[in-house]
Amino acid sequence: MSIKEQAELVKLASPIMAGSSEEQRNKALMAIVKALEEHKNEIFAANKEDLEQAVKDGVAAPIIKRLKFDETKLKDVIAGINDLIGLKDPLFQKQMKRQLDEGMILVRETCPIGVIGVIFEARPDALIQISSLCIKSGNCVILKGGSETINSNRVLFQIIYDAVRKSGMPENCMLQLEARSEISELLTCNAYVDLLIPRGSNSFVQYIMDNTKIPVMGHADGICHIYVDKEADLDKAVPIIIDAKTQYASACNAVETLLIHQEVLDTFIPKLYSALKENNVTLRGSEQIVHLTGCSESSEKDNYTEYLDLILSAKEVNSVDEAIEHINYFGSHHTDCIITENDDTAEYFMKYVDSAGVYQNCSTRFADGYRYGFGAEVGISTSKIHARGPVGLEGLVSYKYKLYGSGNIVDDYAKGKRQFHFKDLI
Amino acid sequence: MSIKEQAELVKLASPIMAGSSEEQRNKALMAIVKALEEHKNEIFAANKEDLEQAVKDGVAAPIIKRLKFDETKLKDVIAGINDLIGLKDPLFQKQMKRQLDEGMILVRETCPIGVIGVIFEARPDALIQISSLCIKSGNCVILKGGSETINSNRVLFQIIYDAVRKSGMPENCMLQLEARSEISELLTCNAYVDLLIPRGSNSFVQYIMDNTKIPVMGHADGICHIYVDKEADLDKAVPIIIDAKTQYASACNAVETLLIHQEVLDTFIPKLYSALKENNVTLRGSEQIVHLTGCSESSEKDNYTEYLDLILSAKEVNSVDEAIEHINYFGSHHTDCIITENDDTAEYFMKYVDSAGVYQNCSTRFADGYRYGFGAEVGISTSKIHARGPVGLEGLVSYKYKLYGSGNIVDDYAKGKRQFHFKDLI
Repeated sequence: MSIKEQAELVKLASPIMAGSSEEQRNKALMAIVKALEEHKNEIFAANKEDLEQAVKDGVAAPIIKRLKFDETKLKDVIAGINDLIGLKDPLFQKQMKRQLDEGMILVRETCPIGVIGVIFEARPDALIQISSLCIKSGNCVILKGGSETINSNRVLFQIIYDAVRKSGMPENCMLQLEARSEISELLTCNAYVDLLIPRGSNSFVQYIMDNTKIPVMGHADGICHIYVDKEADLDKAVPIIIDAKTQYASACNAVETLLIHQEVLDTFIPKLYSALKENNVTLRGSEQIVHLTGCSESSEKDNYTEYLDLILSAKEVNSVDEAIEHINYFGSHHTDCIITENDDTAEYFMKYVDSAGVYQNCSTRFADGYRYGFGAEVGISTSKIHARGPVGLEGLVSYKYKLYGSGNIVDDYAKGKRQFHFKDLI
Repeated sequence: MSIKEQAELVKLASPIMAGSSEEQRNKALMAIVKALEEHKNEIFAANKEDLEQAVKDGVAAPIIKRLKFDETKLKDVIAGINDLIGLKDPLFQKQMKRQLDEGMILVRETCPIGVIGVIFEARPDALIQISSLCIKSGNCVILKGGSETINSNRVLFQIIYDAVRKSGMPENCMLQLEARSEISELLTCNAYVDLLIPRGSNSFVQYIMDNTKIPVMGHADGICHIYVDKEADLDKAVPIIIDAKTQYASACNAVETLLIHQEVLDTFIPKLYSALKENNVTLRGSEQIVHLTGCSESSEKDNYTEYLDLILSAKEVNSVDEAIEHINYFGSHHTDCIITENDDTAEYFMKYVDSAGVYQNCSTRFADGYRYGFGAEVGISTSKIHARGPVGLEGLVSYKYKLYGSGNIVDDYAKGKRQFHFKDLI
């Protein structure tokens, strides 16, 4: 069967999945927990094969750490699924109940999106988290994980799929793709896939966005800024900047560009520069900053660059407005922070910066579903259509309008025989 | 200036528009009301030119009625704007306020989408409604109206724009395109336009969806169904079907296909057929229905067809499940109705039919923002991403996450020095 034919079967299963009760979906999640525990040795064995291959391929140590799936990670994902089971049902929630006229009641109720396609990095725990979020939200899911964990993915998918099936979910509620070549076929399945969530490098996400008619949720660039205001507490600023740059430099929410108010530049830059050097961060500065520190000079291109590395660009600005303009023009609308003790300036910055996350006095690295208390996330969206920022369960549901009538026709209202009497009941 | 350059200016104005207060936006709406009243004779004169041209061009009478803008329509749109002024501010609404840990508060607050492009049919009142909805929701707007009302549009836009500017809104908060050729340039402005709302024929909307990277909200087809259940009150069914087909046959929410439970077919069809004939509706039926009525026979193609005309196709089904399957497979996920007195069957139908509107015992023609009590609508969406169904103010906003910290860094949490303590404050 082609991917398209398989995707159609998933689509056909989606209304059944959408009608499943909270109890059924939680039962499926419990079955996953049980199955993961029972089959953990199979999982660890498959993961060992992946790790051995990665070592053979000369994959770097920090990446290998991400590929690894051990007792600790198993414990973490199981805790995550148990949290998810405890969360309020995202489906069948009445967002509105309105009487339109006597004998006619309109209800807006949440429902799943349908079929979600997720293309994600090589991380076995991601497969488990994404599947669980989709099941809890009543969505069918098509998964394509990174090829470096192909053995782990295959075993995990089979375990999860069997558990979900045994707990009564429809045959085609989940599908796993394995070959990279299958992605391009998936991109043509706009008739069957309601939403695509690509995770990975900028160029990969951009490629997906440019080559499909399926709505895409996610982000390509993560060019985050920190603006150090003239009323900043400079002792707070340094550790925040170091954390935002070094805590995980290749993350999308790491800071790339620093904007510093002219009035504090002379005092702040020496302090910052020595901290950056201590943490092996290379600074690229404007002419003034080069003059003050002796760092290398930045160019226009730095304004647009997501380094994903221990590099930081910095320039001075004359006002909060100039900082806002720079961020809105060069940024990627992901997460941007102001360091200031003046709460009015902070509110002003937060109002006019057009980003999914606008922060005061804390690290941009907090932009994450887990840290926001969403339990887990399927990704971070920089779009303003549908979900924005870290996306948890709520971003995986839509709603439908249910209208309960008693023989009502529009012509009566068009001719003025009857009038609407709107009355909210909840 | 090219359309792209003009669209960039609109984009640059969007953060200023986004920061405008409720008072400023309502003031702008009041200024529009005043200006429309003061300049009504100019508007009527321009509209007269359009109508004369339409008559010359041999435009059909019902269409001319739609082009017309007179005292009655002016009164209606002014009442609409006044309603809008009274509606709760859609911006700066806190959807969440959560303490993540001591000294760190996360707020989710609504904000405008940014720049909305709306391409709409020749109807002067539509221009006014769309502009007002965008202003109330703090969005910049790029308008392209139908060319049959080019004179009315030009005058109306100028009046609205001047009023909005005088009340303090930024210079480039609104833009009007006039030439049809400018649409293709607009479609390339994905860097500057956040959302496109095309209204019009299926083929036009489909063309837009296929030729832009800008997210599109709307619907191409409107293939709506009515299913007459075995427990239907047949006396309710006939007027509902007649209304859904004839009240405005070319509307997207008119019914196209009737599904009738086998058990009531013999009793129901003669009753229905005479009512259809009385209302000049042509029936295309399955073999059984042809046998019972002598109507013309339907083909597979009828299942996919939005007639936009006084034509209705009908076939028998053996169960509610067969009806649901037909609707999910052939429908356009717009609005579908069940006629039944059995509320359990209705709930079952509403749960498993995957459409923006699922109705019991009333006409599909109710699918409309005004009839849902939204004041007005910018369009009807069949997408499950972002807004679904009739879209009012709520569909024109996004949100941002504001995080208020006090020097917090992620490394403290990663190293276990601190733990999150999530606590919802609203």
